[in-house]
Amino acid sequence: MKSDTGIPDSLGEWLKDQPSDDIVISSRIRLARNLSEFNFPNRSSGPELEEVKNILFSVLDNWQKQDGEKNLLHFDMEKLDELEREVLIERHLISRALAENPAGSSTYIDKAQSLSLMVNEEDHLRMQFIKTGAGLEKAWEEADDFDDFLEEKLDYAFSSRLGYLTACPTNLGTGLRASVMLHLPGLNMTDEIGRLLGGVGKFGFTVRGIFGEGTDSEGSIYQLSNQVTLGYREEDIIDNLYGILHRIREKEVKARKMLEEERSGDIKNKIMRAFGILRHSYKVNYLESIHFASLLLLGDYYQLFSEFDRDKLMELMILTRPAHLQLYSGDRNRTDRGDIRRAELIKESLSSFKI
Amino acid sequence: MKSDTGIPDSLGEWLKDQPSDDIVISSRIRLARNLSEFNFPNRSSGPELEEVKNILFSVLDNWQKQDGEKNLLHFDMEKLDELEREVLIERHLISRALAENPAGSSTYIDKAQSLSLMVNEEDHLRMQFIKTGAGLEKAWEEADDFDDFLEEKLDYAFSSRLGYLTACPTNLGTGLRASVMLHLPGLNMTDEIGRLLGGVGKFGFTVRGIFGEGTDSEGSIYQLSNQVTLGYREEDIIDNLYGILHRIREKEVKARKMLEEERSGDIKNKIMRAFGILRHSYKVNYLESIHFASLLLLGDYYQLFSEFDRDKLMELMILTRPAHLQLYSGDRNRTDRGDIRRAELIKESLSSFKI
Repeated sequence: MKSDTGIPDSLGEWLKDQPSDDIVISSRIRLARNLSEFNFPNRSSGPELEEVKNILFSVLDNWQKQDGEKNLLHFDMEKLDELEREVLIERHLISRALAENPAGSSTYIDKAQSLSLMVNEEDHLRMQFIKTGAGLEKAWEEADDFDDFLEEKLDYAFSSRLGYLTACPTNLGTGLRASVMLHLPGLNMTDEIGRLLGGVGKFGFTVRGIFGEGTDSEGSIYQLSNQVTLGYREEDIIDNLYGILHRIREKEVKARKMLEEERSGDIKNKIMRAFGILRHSYKVNYLESIHFASLLLLGDYYQLFSEFDRDKLMELMILTRPAHLQLYSGDRNRTDRGDIRRAELIKESLSSFKI
Repeated sequence: MKSDTGIPDSLGEWLKDQPSDDIVISSRIRLARNLSEFNFPNRSSGPELEEVKNILFSVLDNWQKQDGEKNLLHFDMEKLDELEREVLIERHLISRALAENPAGSSTYIDKAQSLSLMVNEEDHLRMQFIKTGAGLEKAWEEADDFDDFLEEKLDYAFSSRLGYLTACPTNLGTGLRASVMLHLPGLNMTDEIGRLLGGVGKFGFTVRGIFGEGTDSEGSIYQLSNQVTLGYREEDIIDNLYGILHRIREKEVKARKMLEEERSGDIKNKIMRAFGILRHSYKVNYLESIHFASLLLLGDYYQLFSEFDRDKLMELMILTRPAHLQLYSGDRNRTDRGDIRRAELIKESLSSFKI
């Protein structure tokens, strides 16, 4: 297994081939698991954490050898510097909690960066499977197979009454968090998003903005996920989430249609200006870039562009994040020119786009 | 003399060859004169107004014959429709008061549209001479010569104590209004414009925003003119105005330098975005177009453009005015698509500009 060879330049495959006519950007399955013979990480000492790391390393190394294609990369979190850890957060591969408490923890990612494993974060093992678009079943299938493999080798902390035991009771039972990242510009522009955010709670789900607090998420990007992990089968959680997703999709499509019919000129203008600003700015801050990129995605949906490359735009939305800009700028120590570099990178990336 | 042949497509020559490194867009001399044997227009009956018109027509026809190059065009204001009158306002050739009360009045303009004569506006005759840049002396010279010619043929209402008599006492004496149109983005962006507007009053001058009320004129375009017409020689009024202008110019240059030194990135960003928006918008309203065009002028001053055509931009600022857009759209009756047509015209006109 390759260890600490540096973060790969390429980005996750889930950024590619996203459907331009759907609201779902990506799907994610996360499982929380613990080893029965060890304390939870927050109650562990250094040597105990080390032991957990070693056990998991050996099992994962074994898993990888069964399939040479996996190419797991292994990062000792303490050996990465702050900027590198931030880059992994920006790629959705690790949590901020892990980055801020790297002691005794490690991370594994596969070549496609669609699988990531955090060791000794809140739980001994957090596994995450990301897929492009509405790919929850596929992600669940892989997660389930992988979990079955591990369960044969490891002694999971499990109770016949409570299911899988986790450090935080909100993860008890299945240990499953299923989520989809959604692009909802229609509901945002028609101010219907607030009602949606309030409404899904009673079904045991939550919708939250990715960029910014409350309803007004920059770029209209939201995450829908299950709140309840206990008392349901995994498949039911996923089915229920799809049920909610189906209703959100209908509402979003309706909102986009309404915007097209009733505010066509204004929307077109917003989109074309967003393109003009991204193509010409001297400086762009990150939240602005998300805001304008979101309008470009909507422009693609409305087929306003004669040349458009969604994969490139989705990658750009990661590459223009602050830590990425800094790590790949060739001058890691300078943060002050970030907005200027972002503008340059955007301009270059969008040079093939045509409206 | 050509009468009612339609408004020429070409715009005034004062729009051309404006200095890009100065704050003065144009200079204007206006003289108010009345004929002694007739009531002021607001106290005249129809036949009396007609008589004044005829007298002036014959004198102006005579003047024109002395110099075939003048090519005076004559418009009976009642024969122009509302849109055509609005177009003359947008070109700064007639006043709104004249356009709104066209009965018994007429207008003469020369080929270059640097001379315009309003008959039976507030006074029997209002003469206006516009020159590009800081050309007040040249405008005054032409105005004075022209006025001398007319004075030989006409019996002006004149009092040895009060000077030229006018319908409104604010024009008594010289009947002279000297004004310069200024572009003051530096003073506007550094919020120093308010002090300037308040300060010139005590010298008998006034500065007012052209677009919008108060200090915050869209596009940072202001007019400096004399308030006092009585008790000074014409040359002194002009000299004093130049004195004020000189101080404003120094302040503006200082403000632009300060912006360049202390807020360079932000200013550059504003200018580049303005260009991006103008190059890509689907709709642009008139005040926005002035706002962004002003930023482009500032960009030219800072030499940010590799390709720039100031004459074209200045013409565009007239051609994109609402009545111009409507008259030249080929569909005079539609006003609703003005913002879209404006965006198209701007896009086309700026296609040769490069940043």
